Amino acid sequence: DYHVGWDASAAEKGGYDHFMLKEIAEQPRAVADTLLGRIGSDGLLTLDEMRLSDQELRDVSKIIVVACGTSYHAGLIAKYAIEHWARVPCEVELASEFRYRDPILNRDTLVIVISQSGETMDTLMAVRHAREQRSRVLAICNVNGSTIPRESDAVLYTHAGPEIAVASTKAFLTQLVACYLVALYIAQVRGVKFGDEITQILDRLAGMPAKVEEVLATMEPVRALARSLADERCVLFLGRHVGFPVALEGALKLKELAYMHAEGFAAGELKHGPIALIDRGLPVVVVVPSPSGQRVIHDKIVSNIQEIRARGARTIVIAEEGDTAVEPYADTLIRVPAVETLLQPLVAAVPLQVFACELATAKGHDVDQPRNLAKSVTVE
Amino acid sequence: DYHVGWDASAAEKGGYDHFMLKEIAEQPRAVADTLLGRIGSDGLLTLDEMRLSDQELRDVSKIIVVACGTSYHAGLIAKYAIEHWARVPCEVELASEFRYRDPILNRDTLVIVISQSGETMDTLMAVRHAREQRSRVLAICNVNGSTIPRESDAVLYTHAGPEIAVASTKAFLTQLVACYLVALYIAQVRGVKFGDEITQILDRLAGMPAKVEEVLATMEPVRALARSLADERCVLFLGRHVGFPVALEGALKLKELAYMHAEGFAAGELKHGPIALIDRGLPVVVVVPSPSGQRVIHDKIVSNIQEIRARGARTIVIAEEGDTAVEPYADTLIRVPAVETLLQPLVAAVPLQVFACELATAKGHDVDQPRNLAKSVTVE
Repeated sequence: DYHVGWDASAAEKGGYDHFMLKEIAEQPRAVADTLLGRIGSDGLLTLDEMRLSDQELRDVSKIIVVACGTSYHAGLIAKYAIEHWARVPCEVELASEFRYRDPILNRDTLVIVISQSGETMDTLMAVRHAREQRSRVLAICNVNGSTIPRESDAVLYTHAGPEIAVASTKAFLTQLVACYLVALYIAQVRGVKFGDEITQILDRLAGMPAKVEEVLATMEPVRALARSLADERCVLFLGRHVGFPVALEGALKLKELAYMHAEGFAAGELKHGPIALIDRGLPVVVVVPSPSGQRVIHDKIVSNIQEIRARGARTIVIAEEGDTAVEPYADTLIRVPAVETLLQPLVAAVPLQVFACELATAKGHDVDQPRNLAKSVTVE
Repeated sequence: DYHVGWDASAAEKGGYDHFMLKEIAEQPRAVADTLLGRIGSDGLLTLDEMRLSDQELRDVSKIIVVACGTSYHAGLIAKYAIEHWARVPCEVELASEFRYRDPILNRDTLVIVISQSGETMDTLMAVRHAREQRSRVLAICNVNGSTIPRESDAVLYTHAGPEIAVASTKAFLTQLVACYLVALYIAQVRGVKFGDEITQILDRLAGMPAKVEEVLATMEPVRALARSLADERCVLFLGRHVGFPVALEGALKLKELAYMHAEGFAAGELKHGPIALIDRGLPVVVVVPSPSGQRVIHDKIVSNIQEIRARGARTIVIAEEGDTAVEPYADTLIRVPAVETLLQPLVAAVPLQVFACELATAKGHDVDQPRNLAKSVTVE
């Protein structure tokens, strides 16, 4: 049996200047805690808060992930994992749009809602609307007993512990873990993956806390870079595949904390407009997919990096260890450990959190309490 | 019988300083031409290039719209129309992501691709991938006999005439019309709308060229506004429901032409991050849905306008005639004619095109040939 407790000290800064720094540092532990106790004695993935029967999960013909803000970015990554591993069609929608759009839902639709607080009002309204349409609702939340899990059919709790800083970090990483677990669980129940395939991915997930720790141990150059960019007005972020939502999340962190115009793009869209923005010295962060995933998308993004650099961009490249193809075109190269393609966001998001936090601090902003923002949006 | 010809003079500027100005002005005609000849002698909507049988369309269980850039924004609007009118689940995806994501496709999936040129490489690759998976492919294109329609199962041509300016305007409006027609056609074939309901919407569509003309006749204040903002570095765009993609498109036009940091947001996401960007004097364009659609989303966006104005934003509000609720909070109010909820993008997009074109011209940029961009992206 296992137990992940929340104690009073967890809500204090524990030697860090800011809650956000502490929460970034806690990510290896948060990821590990969220993985804890998920394997049953039979070696099968077991989600004990999953109050949906195997038959109900086998009947699911469509999954809609609904969330806001950072949780929405976790949902965008979940789509890649759910479709690839479980082969169930999956769409992802902003809660504020979903609710008022008259979405097509029925008994065979599984709606997965993601909310750190479990109190996000637009997401809660989405839960109620989905249940009225007889759809099943699975919540991924961090706060035990909050409203969204109470009103959902099933819940998978992230074990991030209390997140105090307004800008989400450890909750995001644990939401990703929860999404991976749900995708694998559905794959297992529906029999679309063999047990040993699932075990292999779970083993890799189990190795992620150490990988996140490795990233955290090498962040000093990222902090120095962030300080050097404190007077910039704008930073762009590019990614492809699961790196696209990571780019969106990196941009959101910078908006929230540094109040800078930071926008994330799908790298494939560059030539359809955003490339016009590239000007001499503009910092552009590029999240490079592993060359061992789909070689073709790796090579395309390397050529994107060349193109923007030829137009004067200052390229800040996040690439896995051993990826030498990016070296000639990276003004700054940030290395992350090589991991399974779909799991890359767990390591690639971390430098972007550190970057935004340090840059905002260099600007003199309070990273725990950004202007105009509340931790949970409990009004619509 | 009808015939929409392209002649040599159509490819000249015809008295306008730029092709883009000419193409913006041609929109009423382009919309009318795209609607021409769509009603058969039996009063039913007839799409003569629709080489899919009624039975094939009845068998469709899911629609995926795939496109890039401005065409992607047309696709995002199509989703609202397809789900609302035809009640078929619809997702929308960037072509560059779709192709490499291992999407779940089968015989009952209808893939709708949108491309002005019919040569967009990522979109063409999506067509080929979808057909390999036995899905049906319907192309919405502007250039007769181009590669994408030739490789698709069916095509609906927009009759925008040649579009020369790199930034798409009239092609976008006609893509919207084509999407509406496809949604209504599917609704008709599947019997989910009565004939008189479809006729009523078609009548309203038939009235749109005059509404677009009305908008064009009232653009002088928008041009003056654009000139006054030529030294700004950033403009934000907010929208909800079909106004969200309009906000994205308004931001893209400003990026492409004025090289400004312009980003579109779903207004419901404001509190989840973007509101941190609001600073004294920041211009924010808000596309307000009709109060006669869903009152609740209209009222929510009015309260968003109050919130950002209270934080110092300079609010530029696009609202329909007679919507008095927005008046106290609009620093600049741009009126558009009241039209059916789902058709609003046809009028709301126009001021944003004019705004971007004039602002870029005031900055001294060549609006027909923005830097770094090509008209058609014929490489991946």
